[in-house]
Amino acid sequence: MDKNALNKLSYGMYVVGTKDENRFCGCIANSLIQITAEPPTIALSINHNNYTNKCIKESKEFSICVLGEKTNPLIIGTFGFRSAKDTDKFANTNHKVINNLPICSESCAYLICKLINSVEMSTHTIFIASIEQCEILNNDTPMTYSYYHNIIKGKSPKNAPTYIA
Amino acid sequence: MDKNALNKLSYGMYVVGTKDENRFCGCIANSLIQITAEPPTIALSINHNNYTNKCIKESKEFSICVLGEKTNPLIIGTFGFRSAKDTDKFANTNHKVINNLPICSESCAYLICKLINSVEMSTHTIFIASIEQCEILNNDTPMTYSYYHNIIKGKSPKNAPTYIA
Repeated sequence: MDKNALNKLSYGMYVVGTKDENRFCGCIANSLIQITAEPPTIALSINHNNYTNKCIKESKEFSICVLGEKTNPLIIGTFGFRSAKDTDKFANTNHKVINNLPICSESCAYLICKLINSVEMSTHTIFIASIEQCEILNNDTPMTYSYYHNIIKGKSPKNAPTYIA
Repeated sequence: MDKNALNKLSYGMYVVGTKDENRFCGCIANSLIQITAEPPTIALSINHNNYTNKCIKESKEFSICVLGEKTNPLIIGTFGFRSAKDTDKFANTNHKVINNLPICSESCAYLICKLINSVEMSTHTIFIASIEQCEILNNDTPMTYSYYHNIIKGKSPKNAPTYIA
């Protein structure tokens, strides 16, 4: 079994935004797919150790910000490699608020999602959600996970579903 | 709600291979993600109306063939726009057999998957599977869903999770 074969699967790059009792929080995700077209639903994998996981379970709602190729790499650094437990990530990131959820101003599109089901796996939760609202924000090309690795030379944090030691 | 925002999500292009009592069958899928790294698992969305859906439920196993940019468009035509109920798709497609599952010879990598759970949604099933075996077959660049639409000028069939009327 050559786990490098798993690097041949394709993904986008997203900021998942949600909130705890006091403030907005979120993290980077790549493992996200649409499940049904009508009504529109998605599935998303988030590590049990991510603070965002607990916050989605409690608030039952989240935003998806689709990152474009022109995204400031600092956003990926902030949302991908720090814990929302210790850092107020959105305080240092330009964002607007839609349906009481945070949207990074730089994202090329966003989705507002309502949790409808979840499946617990060994290290991650699959969150299944309906899309309540969505909009294109600019013409930037969506960043792929491959672009992030090969062009930006980015790395995957240990909590990623696609992490290879 | 502008559903075109959903076109900003990124995917790869895959042939899902499985079997009924008599022969191999399969279809094209794009909504596929890795869920956990250790043990490696994936989730996949397949329409209830696809014959492949019924066959995965019965055989409890399937292969994922990762299509590369050099894939012959006939493969996408055969697997994406015909029903495996009426057409023996693999009979007309170069393939090899690994763990009793069909692998398109042209694919740049493959995964052998064992069904461990499923979630029924309105029009699609989310299949959750463990990866039993995987391998890189060649250096072709994985085809993204965006490449399929923008470069090959391909369309989505009505059964796709990402279909927009």
